[in-house]
Amino acid sequence: MASSFFRDLLDQIVERGRALKAFSLGGGGHDGTIEALSQGLLSGRGESSGMVVARHILAIFDLLSDDEKTEYFHFLNDVLVPDDEALKAAAAAYLETPSRQQMMQLAKAVESPRQELFRRLNLAPGGTAQIVRMRAELLKRLKAHPELKPVDDDMAHLFGSWFNRGFLVMRRIDWSTPATILEKIIEYEAVHEIKGWDDLKRRLNPKDRRCYGFFHPSLVDEPLIFVEVALTRGISGAIHDVISEEDEAEALDPDTAVFYSISNCQKGLAGISFGNFLIKQVVSDLSKEIDSLNTFVTLSPIPGFMRWLEGLREAGEIDARELSLLDHSTWPSKKDAEKRLSDVLLPLAARYFLQEKRGDGKPLDPVARFHLGNGARLERLNWLADLSDRGLEQSAGMMVNYLYDLDYIERNHEAYAEQGVIAAASSVSRLVPAKAAGAVKERESA
Amino acid sequence: MASSFFRDLLDQIVERGRALKAFSLGGGGHDGTIEALSQGLLSGRGESSGMVVARHILAIFDLLSDDEKTEYFHFLNDVLVPDDEALKAAAAAYLETPSRQQMMQLAKAVESPRQELFRRLNLAPGGTAQIVRMRAELLKRLKAHPELKPVDDDMAHLFGSWFNRGFLVMRRIDWSTPATILEKIIEYEAVHEIKGWDDLKRRLNPKDRRCYGFFHPSLVDEPLIFVEVALTRGISGAIHDVISEEDEAEALDPDTAVFYSISNCQKGLAGISFGNFLIKQVVSDLSKEIDSLNTFVTLSPIPGFMRWLEGLREAGEIDARELSLLDHSTWPSKKDAEKRLSDVLLPLAARYFLQEKRGDGKPLDPVARFHLGNGARLERLNWLADLSDRGLEQSAGMMVNYLYDLDYIERNHEAYAEQGVIAAASSVSRLVPAKAAGAVKERESA
Amino acid sequence: MASSFFRDLLDQIVERGRALKAFSLGGGGHDGTIEALSQGLLSGRGESSGMVVARHILAIFDLLSDDEKTEYFHFLNDVLVPDDEALKAAAAAYLETPSRQQMMQLAKAVESPRQELFRRLNLAPGGTAQIVRMRAELLKRLKAHPELKPVDDDMAHLFGSWFNRGFLVMRRIDWSTPATILEKIIEYEAVHEIKGWDDLKRRLNPKDRRCYGFFHPSLVDEPLIFVEVALTRGISGAIHDVISEEDEAEALDPDTAVFYSISNCQKGLAGISFGNFLIKQVVSDLSKEIDSLNTFVTLSPIPGFMRWLEGLREAGEIDARELSLLDHSTWPSKKDAEKRLSDVLLPLAARYFLQEKRGDGKPLDPVARFHLGNGARLERLNWLADLSDRGLEQSAGMMVNYLYDLDYIERNHEAYAEQGVIAAASSVSRLVPAKAAGAVKERESA
Amino acid sequence: MASSFFRDLLDQIVERGRALKAFSLGGGGHDGTIEALSQGLLSGRGESSGMVVARHILAIFDLLSDDEKTEYFHFLNDVLVPDDEALKAAAAAYLETPSRQQMMQLAKAVESPRQELFRRLNLAPGGTAQIVRMRAELLKRLKAHPELKPVDDDMAHLFGSWFNRGFLVMRRIDWSTPATILEKIIEYEAVHEIKGWDDLKRRLNPKDRRCYGFFHPSLVDEPLIFVEVALTRGISGAIHDVISEEDEAEALDPDTAVFYSISNCQKGLAGISFGNFLIKQVVSDLSKEIDSLNTFVTLSPIPGFMRWLEGLREAGEIDARELSLLDHSTWPSKKDAEKRLSDVLLPLAARYFLQEKRGDGKPLDPVARFHLGNGARLERLNWLADLSDRGLEQSAGMMVNYLYDLDYIERNHEAYAEQGVIAAASSVSRLVPAKAAGAVKERESA
Repeated sequence: MASSFFRDLLDQIVERGRALKAFSLGGGGHDGTIEALSQGLLSGRGESSGMVVARHILAIFDLLSDDEKTEYFHFLNDVLVPDDEALKAAAAAYLETPSRQQMMQLAKAVESPRQELFRRLNLAPGGTAQIVRMRAELLKRLKAHPELKPVDDDMAHLFGSWFNRGFLVMRRIDWSTPATILEKIIEYEAVHEIKGWDDLKRRLNPKDRRCYGFFHPSLVDEPLIFVEVALTRGISGAIHDVISEEDEAEALDPDTAVFYSISNCQKGLAGISFGNFLIKQVVSDLSKEIDSLNTFVTLSPIPGFMRWLEGLREAGEIDARELSLLDHSTWPSKKDAEKRLSDVLLPLAARYFLQEKRGDGKPLDPVARFHLGNGARLERLNWLADLSDRGLEQSAGMMVNYLYDLDYIERNHEAYAEQGVIAAASSVSRLVPAKAAGAVKERESA
Repeated sequence: MASSFFRDLLDQIVERGRALKAFSLGGGGHDGTIEALSQGLLSGRGESSGMVVARHILAIFDLLSDDEKTEYFHFLNDVLVPDDEALKAAAAAYLETPSRQQMMQLAKAVESPRQELFRRLNLAPGGTAQIVRMRAELLKRLKAHPELKPVDDDMAHLFGSWFNRGFLVMRRIDWSTPATILEKIIEYEAVHEIKGWDDLKRRLNPKDRRCYGFFHPSLVDEPLIFVEVALTRGISGAIHDVISEEDEAEALDPDTAVFYSISNCQKGLAGISFGNFLIKQVVSDLSKEIDSLNTFVTLSPIPGFMRWLEGLREAGEIDARELSLLDHSTWPSKKDAEKRLSDVLLPLAARYFLQEKRGDGKPLDPVARFHLGNGARLERLNWLADLSDRGLEQSAGMMVNYLYDLDYIERNHEAYAEQGVIAAASSVSRLVPAKAAGAVKERESA
Repeated sequence: MASSFFRDLLDQIVERGRALKAFSLGGGGHDGTIEALSQGLLSGRGESSGMVVARHILAIFDLLSDDEKTEYFHFLNDVLVPDDEALKAAAAAYLETPSRQQMMQLAKAVESPRQELFRRLNLAPGGTAQIVRMRAELLKRLKAHPELKPVDDDMAHLFGSWFNRGFLVMRRIDWSTPATILEKIIEYEAVHEIKGWDDLKRRLNPKDRRCYGFFHPSLVDEPLIFVEVALTRGISGAIHDVISEEDEAEALDPDTAVFYSISNCQKGLAGISFGNFLIKQVVSDLSKEIDSLNTFVTLSPIPGFMRWLEGLREAGEIDARELSLLDHSTWPSKKDAEKRLSDVLLPLAARYFLQEKRGDGKPLDPVARFHLGNGARLERLNWLADLSDRGLEQSAGMMVNYLYDLDYIERNHEAYAEQGVIAAASSVSRLVPAKAAGAVKERESA
Repeated sequence: MASSFFRDLLDQIVERGRALKAFSLGGGGHDGTIEALSQGLLSGRGESSGMVVARHILAIFDLLSDDEKTEYFHFLNDVLVPDDEALKAAAAAYLETPSRQQMMQLAKAVESPRQELFRRLNLAPGGTAQIVRMRAELLKRLKAHPELKPVDDDMAHLFGSWFNRGFLVMRRIDWSTPATILEKIIEYEAVHEIKGWDDLKRRLNPKDRRCYGFFHPSLVDEPLIFVEVALTRGISGAIHDVISEEDEAEALDPDTAVFYSISNCQKGLAGISFGNFLIKQVVSDLSKEIDSLNTFVTLSPIPGFMRWLEGLREAGEIDARELSLLDHSTWPSKKDAEKRLSDVLLPLAARYFLQEKRGDGKPLDPVARFHLGNGARLERLNWLADLSDRGLEQSAGMMVNYLYDLDYIERNHEAYAEQGVIAAASSVSRLVPAKAAGAVKERESA
């Protein structure tokens, strides 16, 4: 029961955040465009009224039209940049005398004033959340305006510092969590839709469910990422076993924790990675809390599989016999074809995971890259595991379990990162021709 | 009554911080020098075991001898630096094509890997506090090892992001604050020593005293800065009125809040400025809490006055008649000389504040620079205000009140920052010859 | 910012409460019937294992069938009673020597051992909630088993001590309240059904809604009573204005707080009165929070009105012309009859409130007795105010506002309690014949 | 991490408690004597302004002189009593018809109106603490005014309900506890004086010390009872080993928890027993927290030993040879006599504990009665264990360890409560003549 004194700290942050919502642009005397205010905030030699100006800028930004926002981002991109002449001079000086001293001068000359602007905007109560939303706005525009990338780079760099894992807190989310958070869990669930409060309550039932999220002290009422876990006996291979299960079973002494959904919540934090830390912290905490647990697996989609299969088909690499299999609309009804299908598709899936690589030597599948990069092992391919429309279209109805074994994570991670070795259970690696075996690491222990 | 859910967040940070203290280097398997571990932490392509390695590095650092620490700082300074060749190439490329693209490349090439190391060290539970202490160690060595300045620059830059005012929380400190915090208030009080728990209790007596501090969610049990306030009727001009006052007076409807002590607590955060924000937040909060308050002043020392006087004397700018006055050891006893002394010294003090400037046009006195830079006004010179040994030696026993008037702060700040104008009450500015009046801004309203 | 140390206190209570749910009757060694255990708990001269036995008893009680529970209550009623012979002796001794000493002996002799049993059951973690539920079970049986009344008397007496208002805490309930509490607000709302989470969210919208409840530290996650408030401009006279209002209005500077629903939550606490305290605390707190508020009224049903009218009709006291009016099924459609109806019904309602009395001189209407007993004033009769089926059947669609004016509450209460005077606005009292005026207190000020 | 919502509940209680302190008797309009106000509070048929009146009464009580307080207690004793005539009638009616119904009437007739007064006084914010202090005032007068006993009986009865263990919360007290609580630990330590904040910090050092207290939600900043524990290797037999130990030892894997001090804090709660529950809860919690612990003992004084010895001497039951031993002033210096002394005194102490009984068959020593009644076992007599003046005068410098073994507590307690059997280790029982062995229960297992 740590110093409870610190608990109160966050009240203020929360209050400050809420206070901002009540803020009206009324009588401030700080008129002028958002651009003028931004330059004023930056140039203010002291910090005297920084908080007020920062509030103004953020409040105005919220009120801008879409076009005006784009315009403001261009201002950030084009105007709030290092001074070209000074930078050239510093670069030339460094080339002439490549001393530590000159390097420092160069580092200063190249730092974008935008970064300092964002830091000062954060003076505003509730500013952190608003700056994160500002980046979400920016990201929406990057496709149409790739020239804005430098602004995004600066924001991402800053968020890397601000949302350092050392500043995050993992919290269990359950039925005694404030509704304002729960509402967001419903909203943000990205993998398997939560169909309202009753469905949510089922997913939080402490008998055999857990949910954990990362929070940041300065983001009011907002989870950054959360993971949903089912406690089971044995490894669950089908999502409907996990999700539609009736709320009656009492999981006695579960031996397995299944991570069946992990969702990022903040679009403005895209690219700042939390999932790896969250999964490992949950594995570590659950091991301590529930003695009977000995297996930690995900139940994951294979989002790129059918697209890859389609590519094979177009390239003529799948023979005619198998072509018809790709028409998944006929699958579930053809019970008799199931066996034949799995004989064909499972080895293809194994090949997809173990042998097909991108240019950088990493697997094609993005979910696989995430978990293998974390040091997890490809544990099991599950046939007929997700018969939802999306599951059929993307993954031929298959799902996959990645195993998080804390004793092997480090080793797996290194072998993957350095040599591209994919850790896989023998039941999976066995499905591909022997020639691939070299790149496949068998499980080393029970 | 903000979402109390968030209160629990900090428990974990606190717990994590405490957990570290129990950490033993026992069986980790991560042997190797701190330098090797640091490079490992940096080069680890994923973040798999980052937390464990970070813990190791920080634990080892604590156990290093003084010389070994110095050595490690040199490693940070000499080894964890941008790649010279790559940087040269980027600089040359930018000079050739000064595009936004090349600028981004250059910015990346010049960023020191040390910064990323510090960010990763922060993965360790309690890491933030340890990295702050690491900088305190570094600062101790800067005088003897000025070549380590670039490491300090990087740390200061990072702390500017981490300890952004937007992430700090102001908390009132009173007698119901945990002892672990109060103990630090006693320890850190830098201006007017607190002589034990009874003295502390007196200074926290809610009848006529307040104390506030800034805290950061990740710094366990550690105030960053705190300020002590006395609620009085009328502006207090002598420190013994404030400090040694018996604990019996009931301040009925105080009209004045006197900020009589402000202390930074973390050596490792030197140069990261908090005082400005803290004072203004306290002024704002107290105005709301206590209707009768209408005046907010400091009661401040004049640390550079006697040194300056001594300089005058050496330069022969003070005539013989006044020379003897500088022997303060004779003052308090010579009651008859008091009047004569004040006639001589007060105008000298006014000149010291209003006319004497450093090279950059700012006043000589560091405390004056701080408060004037915040937008405060030089309100009153107080004769015989601090008769402690230090008070006599530094300030000829004088103290000064700086006035924080929220309506004028902004204006004062700008005039000071841009034109070097020193806001001063007419009672002060009147003491200097008319020629100086141009640079002195009189109070504009009651 | 009260001592936050105390916050943690309740965690334990909560934890203890939850722990009990996980309690299994497994290996305790305390076999024996619930009756035997109860006598053991009572007779245990020390308290050595009281907590374990208490847990056992409460756990067994929960598992008893309905009949077994009834049996247990009879055990409490018949066996755990004062010793007849000892009581007779004490009564006789007192009659012989009516001293203070003998009176104390008599008081001891007559105290039911049941009370001590309940106090010892409360040793069990979460016991308080279970004992409250035990009384709810008892109350369900009182009609069929009036002989159990003494057990209920003892429980009610004990709860009067345990749930003393001094131990209750008022808490605002809003969207950041834990779902486990909100769920109960939906469930317990007794007056105007809440139709799910969206409806609830509307009713908690801080713009123009408030909800407050009383909680007891030992009742985990359970409100005791709660009140819903609408902030409006002007006194709202129709429930559909309050409830079905779209969630768009921003109540600017509301002048009126309308208490439109107050619901008791714990059947086991029937007869322990909280409503009076809750309303007054909310009035007091809201006055401080929102300066613009100057009027606090209820919007209340008239549950006994139609039953009384029916009585009049049966007694032939309403003339033929008015008889047909009682068929409310025809009302809302007969727009043309509305005016005529109100001319007839409003004076009848005024008579119902102001002139009709029970045997004890109090009004017939139970809601009126509650609010008038609290010192409120009958402020306004509202025609066509609740057109729900229940509203039409019970109250002829009318509702009434009771005014809580803190300056008059005390006076109203005393006049009501001591002389049966009913405080009413002149607009109401004017509706009844002059002869009644004597018993009606007009409003004395604006 | 239970519903943190509940944490906020107590803030209000705390705030209410503090608010009262600021209460001034100013403009209430409730003049009249405290007696008149008390009768008004009681007779008020509703509860309209109860809170205000209760505040008044409690505030006035605090301002009464000592004599006036005595007078008020007499008022409570003589005036706020059951109506004699009504009580006689009820007693007679019961004697005539001893039905359940008449019993209930009698119970009502005999209940003292004082009890209801106390319940209503508790409406005042902070009332609970004040009523507890009121009883402390009463207890001071009981010796001189034994006739006030009935008032005390009523208060004790009520406090038995209010401070039921089910409503108490155990909290660890450590260096992060608010100073306002710690200050009281220093003040209330009854057994071994705490000599200031440094001494306190030593006693709270988490390395090898623990301190726990019971708190009640409505008693602001006030522990009810607390216990100090030392974690050691082996059973500590001398208090100076525990208290004066230097703060350097790191207790690695302690196997023993020594309860060396337990202090009640509230004089007004005398006779309401908490110690039993507190010790057992601490034993239970510590066993879970620290795996290596397997022994829980007290280190207790023997307050009645020397008084009893003196009685023996006066009765001539100690022979001449031993008489001189009673002059303890000569002990510590006579090193050579130590062995002889212990040969004589230890058997006498064993006899004192095991054979000497009060009229009710319980041991003479009050501390022994407490721990044996809790089910503890007399484990070890310690020679030269407390050489303080008090230790020598009361206990001939001896101390005793009582062992709390959860597996035997129940059995020991029952044997003690029902047959007066004193559980003692064989090393103790061996010291008394065989004839006593029958009444002494030997340890049954390791």
